[in-house]
Amino acid sequence: MKEGKFRILAEDGNARCGVYATSSGEFDTPNFMPVGTRGSVKGVDCERLEEIGTQIVLVNTYHLWIRPGVEHVKALGGIHKFTGWNGPILSDSGGFQIYSLSSLRKITEEGVEFRSHLDGAKKFLSPELAVSLQEDLGVDIAMALDECPPADLSYGEVERSLNLTLRWASRSLKAKTKDTMSLFGITQGGCYKDLRARSAEEICAMDFDGVAVGGLSVGEPKDVMYEVLDYHVPDLCPRRVRYLMGVGTPRDIVEAVRHGIDLFDCVIPTRSGRFGRAFISGEEPYINIKNSRHAKADMPLDEGCLCLSCRRYSRGYIHHLFKSGEMLGPQLVTIHNLAHYMGLMASIREAVKAGQFGALYRKIRMRYKGVDIEEGCNDKKGGDKEEV
Amino acid sequence: MKEGKFRILAEDGNARCGVYATSSGEFDTPNFMPVGTRGSVKGVDCERLEEIGTQIVLVNTYHLWIRPGVEHVKALGGIHKFTGWNGPILSDSGGFQIYSLSSLRKITEEGVEFRSHLDGAKKFLSPELAVSLQEDLGVDIAMALDECPPADLSYGEVERSLNLTLRWASRSLKAKTKDTMSLFGITQGGCYKDLRARSAEEICAMDFDGVAVGGLSVGEPKDVMYEVLDYHVPDLCPRRVRYLMGVGTPRDIVEAVRHGIDLFDCVIPTRSGRFGRAFISGEEPYINIKNSRHAKADMPLDEGCLCLSCRRYSRGYIHHLFKSGEMLGPQLVTIHNLAHYMGLMASIREAVKAGQFGALYRKIRMRYKGVDIEEGCNDKKGGDKEEV
Repeated sequence: MKEGKFRILAEDGNARCGVYATSSGEFDTPNFMPVGTRGSVKGVDCERLEEIGTQIVLVNTYHLWIRPGVEHVKALGGIHKFTGWNGPILSDSGGFQIYSLSSLRKITEEGVEFRSHLDGAKKFLSPELAVSLQEDLGVDIAMALDECPPADLSYGEVERSLNLTLRWASRSLKAKTKDTMSLFGITQGGCYKDLRARSAEEICAMDFDGVAVGGLSVGEPKDVMYEVLDYHVPDLCPRRVRYLMGVGTPRDIVEAVRHGIDLFDCVIPTRSGRFGRAFISGEEPYINIKNSRHAKADMPLDEGCLCLSCRRYSRGYIHHLFKSGEMLGPQLVTIHNLAHYMGLMASIREAVKAGQFGALYRKIRMRYKGVDIEEGCNDKKGGDKEEV
Repeated sequence: MKEGKFRILAEDGNARCGVYATSSGEFDTPNFMPVGTRGSVKGVDCERLEEIGTQIVLVNTYHLWIRPGVEHVKALGGIHKFTGWNGPILSDSGGFQIYSLSSLRKITEEGVEFRSHLDGAKKFLSPELAVSLQEDLGVDIAMALDECPPADLSYGEVERSLNLTLRWASRSLKAKTKDTMSLFGITQGGCYKDLRARSAEEICAMDFDGVAVGGLSVGEPKDVMYEVLDYHVPDLCPRRVRYLMGVGTPRDIVEAVRHGIDLFDCVIPTRSGRFGRAFISGEEPYINIKNSRHAKADMPLDEGCLCLSCRRYSRGYIHHLFKSGEMLGPQLVTIHNLAHYMGLMASIREAVKAGQFGALYRKIRMRYKGVDIEEGCNDKKGGDKEEV
C-alpha cells in the first residue's frame, strides 16, 4: 500500500478532500485536469492555466509518441520543459487512443499492435513500453496500459479483457524503474458488478500509487455509470487517490465525488468551449454563445467569474468573434469553461472541508438535470477526434 | 492647423519622437498599430497586447459595418467596450477594403457603391457616411474616405483619382461633428512627384488632426516606395502626426521614420506569425518555425525577448504545435512578433531621443537587406484576405 503520496485532510460522507504530492509539486483533491492531448490545452497558454487555478494537466502518451516522438520530448528536456507547464502532469497510457483512433489494431497477450492514425506506420505497445515511454516523457503520474472494451460487450468478453488488463497491470508495476514517478492502476469490468469487484480487489492488492476507474464514460447510459460508481468505488482502496478517467460534466463530477472519487479529466470544458458552449452560474447551466440572442448582450459570459473572458469581454463581442470565425472566440470560451471547472472543484473542496458537500451535491444535481452540454459538439469541426 | 494633439519631444535629422493625445489616452510616436480588422487582433487578447507594450490598435470600419454593424457596436457601448481595448483606437475609413474585397464597386462623385463580400448586399459609402460610421463606432482617430488606386495606373487616371480624394477630404472635414474624435486626411498621387506635392499641399491646408500617406505598399517596388517617401514626406505639415498606412517590415519602418513618419500599421507581424514566421534578434532577421531544423531546438524564439512565448516555450515546442495544427502555435508566434515590433518602436523612440537614430537605421537596413518575410504568406491558409 502506497498511501504516502496522498493525504486525506477531510471527509464528508464518502466524499474526501486531500493533497497528492508529486515531484513537481502537490495538487489538491478533488481536482480536474484540463486535457492537453498533444502537449497543449487547445488555445490556452500555461500562464492562463495557472491564473485560473489549474494544478495538474493531462497529456497523452499515444499522441506524443506518434508525434513528435518520446525521444524528441526527452531531448527537449522532458514533458515539463517541453510544454512549459511546471506543475504536476499525468499521462494517459495511450491504450484508449489506440482503441479509438488507430486502425488494424491486434491485441495479444504481449501487447497491442496497431497502425498510427497519422501515417499508417506499424507500431507495437506493451505494458512495459507504456511505462518506459511515460518515464521517458518525465511525467509525474503514469497510467498502466489497460484494455478498454466498448460498453456493449458480453460478460465473457469483458471477463477475458479484464483478465488481460490485470496481467498487464502486474507487468506494468514490474517495469517501473523511476521512484519519482507515480504509477496508477486501472480497474475495468464494464458494467458487471462481480467483474468490477474482482478488478478492484486485484488492482488494490498491487503496489500502485493510485487507482483509476476505467471503462466508464465510453457510451453507457448515465444511470448505468452512476450505478457502477455506487457499487465499485467503495471497493477501491480508500487511502489511495482515486481517478475517474474521462469524466465528465459538473453533474457527473459531483456524483463521483459523492462516491469518493478524487481526480478527473475530460474534454468537455475545452471541446464545448471551442463550439461556443459556455458554462455559467446564472439561471441556465450553460449558453451557446453563437445563438443570436447573445448578439447584443453587453454582460460577460458569467457575471460572477473573474477569468480573462469575463473581466474583459461581453457576450455580444464573443458572439461576434464566433460569427466572424476569429480564433479569439474559442480561446475565450475555453478559458472561461476551464475557470468554471476550477471554481467548481474549489467549491467542492471547500464544501467537503466544511461538511457541506451534501448541499452542494444536491444543488449541482438539480442544476444539470436533463442537461446535455455535449449535444452537437461531436462533429469534426471542433477537432474532437484529435483531442481523444 | 491642429498640432495641439501632437507634441514633438525630440528630433534627430528628419526623424521625430513625440506624443499624440486622444480621449482614450496618449500614445508615443513613432508607434505601430497591431491590426484588429474585425475588432480582434487575431489570436491575441487585450491583456497580452497591453503586456507587450501596445499603445494603440487599428480596427476596420468596412468589416465592422458589414458585421456586426456599426449600430450594433454602438449598442454594445462603442468600440472600446466592444473590443475590450481601453486605449486609443484608430479606424480605417473602409475605402481600401471596398477596393480590395468587394465586387461590383462603382465610384462616383458622391461616393462608392459596392456589394458586401459576405452576402452580396448592395451598400453605398460616402465621405460623410464614413465619418459618421467612425463617430458611431466611437474610435479615437478616424480616417477620411479616399480612393486608393492600384500602383499601375496612368498619370491621368491617378490625377483624376487624386482630385476626387481631395474633394472627399474636404467633405469629410465638413461632416465631422465630434470634437473628441481626431480625423486624419490621406494623401494620394501614386508615384507621380507633382501629384504627391499637390496632394500634400492641399491636405495640409485642410484642418485635419493628422496626415496619412495612402497609396503606398500597394504593389509598387520597394525602391519606388522609398523614393516617394523621400520627396513626399518633407511636404507633409511637419507639426502634425504623420501616418504611413499599411507599412510595413522593420526595414520599411526605419526608412519611413528616417523621413519623418510617426505612425504605422501592418498585418505583417500577425499574418506572418500565423504562418510560423518569427522575427528574431539573432543572426537571421527571422525564422520559419515550421522548418524541421527547429524541431529539436530548446531555445526560445528569441533569447532576448520577454514575451509569453519566449519566457515559457522552446522553438522545438512551437514547431511541434505548428506540425500538430494546434492553435496555440499561431497564437504564440503572433504574440512574439508583435512584441518584437513593439520593442523595435521603443528602440526607435529611444534612439531618436538620444540622437542615435542614424546608427539604428543603418543596423536595421543592413539586417533586412534582401529579406522578404512575407514571401509565401499570401495564400489563403492564413486567412489573409480576411485581414485586409
